[in-house]
Amino acid sequence: MAASFTVSLREAWARSDSLLCVGLDPDPARIPPHLAHRPDAILRFCTAIVDATADLVCAFKPQIAYFAAQRAEDQLEALIAHIHARHPGVPVVLDAKRGDIGSTAEQYAREAFERYRADAVTVNPYMGFDSVEPWLAHAGRGVILLCRTSNPGGADLQSLDVGGERLYERVARLAAGTWNTGGELGLVVGATVPAELARVRALAPDLPLLVPGIGAQGGDVAATVAAGRDAAGVGMMINSSRAILYAGRGEDFAEAARQAAADTRDAINQYRRS
Amino acid sequence: MAASFTVSLREAWARSDSLLCVGLDPDPARIPPHLAHRPDAILRFCTAIVDATADLVCAFKPQIAYFAAQRAEDQLEALIAHIHARHPGVPVVLDAKRGDIGSTAEQYAREAFERYRADAVTVNPYMGFDSVEPWLAHAGRGVILLCRTSNPGGADLQSLDVGGERLYERVARLAAGTWNTGGELGLVVGATVPAELARVRALAPDLPLLVPGIGAQGGDVAATVAAGRDAAGVGMMINSSRAILYAGRGEDFAEAARQAAADTRDAINQYRRS
Repeated sequence: MAASFTVSLREAWARSDSLLCVGLDPDPARIPPHLAHRPDAILRFCTAIVDATADLVCAFKPQIAYFAAQRAEDQLEALIAHIHARHPGVPVVLDAKRGDIGSTAEQYAREAFERYRADAVTVNPYMGFDSVEPWLAHAGRGVILLCRTSNPGGADLQSLDVGGERLYERVARLAAGTWNTGGELGLVVGATVPAELARVRALAPDLPLLVPGIGAQGGDVAATVAAGRDAAGVGMMINSSRAILYAGRGEDFAEAARQAAADTRDAINQYRRS
Repeated sequence: MAASFTVSLREAWARSDSLLCVGLDPDPARIPPHLAHRPDAILRFCTAIVDATADLVCAFKPQIAYFAAQRAEDQLEALIAHIHARHPGVPVVLDAKRGDIGSTAEQYAREAFERYRADAVTVNPYMGFDSVEPWLAHAGRGVILLCRTSNPGGADLQSLDVGGERLYERVARLAAGTWNTGGELGLVVGATVPAELARVRALAPDLPLLVPGIGAQGGDVAATVAAGRDAAGVGMMINSSRAILYAGRGEDFAEAARQAAADTRDAINQYRRS
């Protein structure tokens, strides 16, 4: 693992010429039949996707819920170890959306950074700065705070006016300001409302943004790229999970995933440069 | 497991004459030396605490981070199975503070309710109602939303004014109102600021409150009970973890825990009736 998540992500953007992040959400019901019977089906499926797409992505994002629901924590450990060993320099963002305080937060940080060896983790900011601080004690690891999420209910709390600005704008300002003690914070901002993505980019010009919501969730690629790119034309991990993982269901699922990833990367790049 | 978390909690309050919830946060560095070398040290330690205190509590609350950091998910499964088998009717609240949407939230619900067989789970409301809904699909299971947490940084977002009320007040109102489709919602409200606990109780007269922050975190028992009890003199799971788990370090740690639990229950009951 690199000494700094943000440095390694910047290098990955340059090397891969890609803003695409492939989300690893292995749904047992959708794993190709020729693998599904294996005890290590999740690991086999995910490593095949990883090996087929690693040169096309700036990051991988395993979603821990899919592993935990299947008692497959050992396969998640093996998957991340595989990424580090075979594709060094490709950052791994563990999507866990943890959020707790004090000694409990320290245990979660140990889970993400020591057990799973993730380069970065998603964290929920609702409990405030002292719930973020224990993660920051792990120098060089990335902490990507939920800011404005791509689901309809995201607006229930995040869009409330908190005195001249929205709650998600406050989170963005804090993350770009006093909370960013180690320079390793990022933000999760959905692709479904480009105007809000643009607002977060304005408040946090230099922070990496993890952007779910294109593909299955319906966000528009052109508008997403225009709203979220930074001054250097990078700054985003645009996540796609199902559209890539399940592009094919046959024995050629990995090639189908590679094609889908290449198409998505190219679609992003077209608008990135326009 | 009972058909309804809130019904089973109400029965547990009556049967145990206790508002005490014992938090199971097994810190490997603090497990008594005579157990610490065992491969199942966490399970041995926690089951001993459970068996020594079960008649004194209204609920147990295992904190999943402590198990996940130690690769001890199997011991967490065994611990909860032990509570259900040996102490039927004592609800188990899995403290996981999960929060995600759609199919990911469904995986987390499967983790908590099917894999671990928890009666209730703590959930973070930042992502809004559609992040709460997948949990509610599990009829009869409790969903305890973070509302006003007991840490200093809890105020960073939760106390922001969102148009005539604080963000945590909005969460309490939603949880007591339109979000509570199955009648199984509860709220996490810290003991450190009794006025805020009283405010939540006023907004949500009938919701069970999970109240951390007495003991190690410094909340005052008398003020907590006065502020948080419901009309029937119950309505709270007042959590204590470290003060009970680590009351003793010797081979008599379980008896020391029992004494600490009895003292805490009695202190709570003294103010509950005054």
